[in-house]
Amino acid sequence: MVKIVLDCFGGDKSPGANIAGALSALQKHDDLAMILTGDETVIREELARSGASESERLCIVHAPEIIGCNEKPTDAIRLKKESSMMKAVQLLRKDDTVSGMVSIGSTGALVCAAVLRVGRLRGVCRPAFCPILPTMNGGIVGICDSGANVECHPEYLQQFAVMGSRYLENVYGVENPRVALLNVGAEAEKGDTLHIEAYSVLASTDGIRFVGNMEGRDLLSGEYDLVVCDGFSGNVLVKTTEGTALELLKKIKTDIYSSGLYKFGALFMKKMFEHEKEFMNYQNYGGSVMLGSAKTIVKGHGSSNAKAVSVCIEQAYKMEKSRLCEKIEEDLEKITNIEM
Amino acid sequence: MVKIVLDCFGGDKSPGANIAGALSALQKHDDLAMILTGDETVIREELARSGASESERLCIVHAPEIIGCNEKPTDAIRLKKESSMMKAVQLLRKDDTVSGMVSIGSTGALVCAAVLRVGRLRGVCRPAFCPILPTMNGGIVGICDSGANVECHPEYLQQFAVMGSRYLENVYGVENPRVALLNVGAEAEKGDTLHIEAYSVLASTDGIRFVGNMEGRDLLSGEYDLVVCDGFSGNVLVKTTEGTALELLKKIKTDIYSSGLYKFGALFMKKMFEHEKEFMNYQNYGGSVMLGSAKTIVKGHGSSNAKAVSVCIEQAYKMEKSRLCEKIEEDLEKITNIEM
Repeated sequence: MVKIVLDCFGGDKSPGANIAGALSALQKHDDLAMILTGDETVIREELARSGASESERLCIVHAPEIIGCNEKPTDAIRLKKESSMMKAVQLLRKDDTVSGMVSIGSTGALVCAAVLRVGRLRGVCRPAFCPILPTMNGGIVGICDSGANVECHPEYLQQFAVMGSRYLENVYGVENPRVALLNVGAEAEKGDTLHIEAYSVLASTDGIRFVGNMEGRDLLSGEYDLVVCDGFSGNVLVKTTEGTALELLKKIKTDIYSSGLYKFGALFMKKMFEHEKEFMNYQNYGGSVMLGSAKTIVKGHGSSNAKAVSVCIEQAYKMEKSRLCEKIEEDLEKITNIEM
Repeated sequence: MVKIVLDCFGGDKSPGANIAGALSALQKHDDLAMILTGDETVIREELARSGASESERLCIVHAPEIIGCNEKPTDAIRLKKESSMMKAVQLLRKDDTVSGMVSIGSTGALVCAAVLRVGRLRGVCRPAFCPILPTMNGGIVGICDSGANVECHPEYLQQFAVMGSRYLENVYGVENPRVALLNVGAEAEKGDTLHIEAYSVLASTDGIRFVGNMEGRDLLSGEYDLVVCDGFSGNVLVKTTEGTALELLKKIKTDIYSSGLYKFGALFMKKMFEHEKEFMNYQNYGGSVMLGSAKTIVKGHGSSNAKAVSVCIEQAYKMEKSRLCEKIEEDLEKITNIEM
């Protein structure tokens, strides 16, 4: 049985979407069990509404407090021990039968709790976020780190490459992932000191398939499976991609409504535009997993609906089933040995 | 008379597009004169094809060599003194009557030549690129620096804010431009050391209207007129925006061709899609000006057509007409005085 704890009180659509997501994930996998943290009365009501109730595979742990998005992370994790997020973190940390956690709540508090309470896998310098985006040829691309570490050393980026490669292989079935370094140009000598050094470290790292530098414009080209970056530029990369796609689709919609002729034409293309919107909807691609944490942590987007929450739970489930954490530890050990 | 020198042999469509762009700019402004650098026989032939010839306002300076895009910048500017780019740089540097230069050639060589041969305005730490992108509400946004300085100090970012503000006011008529700092979150304490320090420096800088941090997803929102960033993340920001928009429009086109129904609907929307493509075509918004250079330098995109080249020349023309360089020097002096 894979046991995953879900923080039910985080995200714009919580607790409804979170609980519905849990129920949907439970239906898909017979060997999945869930612990829901949050106000037990509310959770029970929500379950009853869906005709569900507590069972061997679904239990509730009461947590009356909620961490808001604007609370200072260090204060929140110190003062709100009875919050749905911190209860989930405590279970993850102390209960050996719990293998992963999913939260849709405050990213800052979650990163803080992960680092200070959950700790790191053996050999990991810094845990890093690795969200997944769709590529234009129907594939996916992982970005690691997308914001957990705004200041990085070349060795961090080397570890992001190893952890991200194992993640894509084990959870998404990508064989021998093509790893690129986010940079300002294609040549090895491009970029600041960090990126020039990271290039040479990545080029000589065993166990990854490093294919060179990648510029921002090529993220969605389908030529890369994993893009390695410091958390600052990775954050810019991911948010700019999402923002540009959404703004452009919004503009097209506004323009359609500006003309009767366009509106008429669009009648025949409704399905296509819905498809494009779904295609660029990052909710469909799951949450950002925090690679390198001692136990699996998946952070869903704040606006996650039930489907998005369910995808996050599946990511955590697959990480456990594929023994990803052990594989990462084994591979990082190999790198360390080689360097010595 | 405003005299601008154009490097005719750089860019995918050179020399044809470059020369056609020059002729178009000359038609628009009676007080504009151009010097064309490059192989004089080829330029003369190209002019003859358009029914044009040398005149008081159009002269040719022979330069038989060409700097390629893959040449090492420092070697190129040292060894190819007879190239169209270096001839243009020499004219800019030595001829007091020449007020600006436009090149579509190698960015690396141009940056190198600008720094080593042309020098900086009084008080400028580092010249920076400031390209312009369209926003979704029909406005524009400037990004400074987009790649000239991959390693930055907070004072550089402060200067980018001042130089960019004066540029937007004088060349684009933006009143009191709203300046944002590219960062990973909205709060003042977000980001790495550079960005935390830059935030507090910008917040206390006179002569700019600093409105806080901006995340990558909001670049096209129309809420900001100028985004200040280090050259590394600025490069990621600009290339990712351009890349995502182009990839998405390409995908929509492919999807339209996948179904007869979509193709039929698209017949009524042809004009709209052409408009979207034109809207996101960065060529329409001119080149990246190099703010802080001792004299005006505009770098056009490698794929510039005649229209794009003409827009670049107009940018240089407006910079001179508005006395932008003097205004930047005056304003930077004020900041320095305040700090002392």
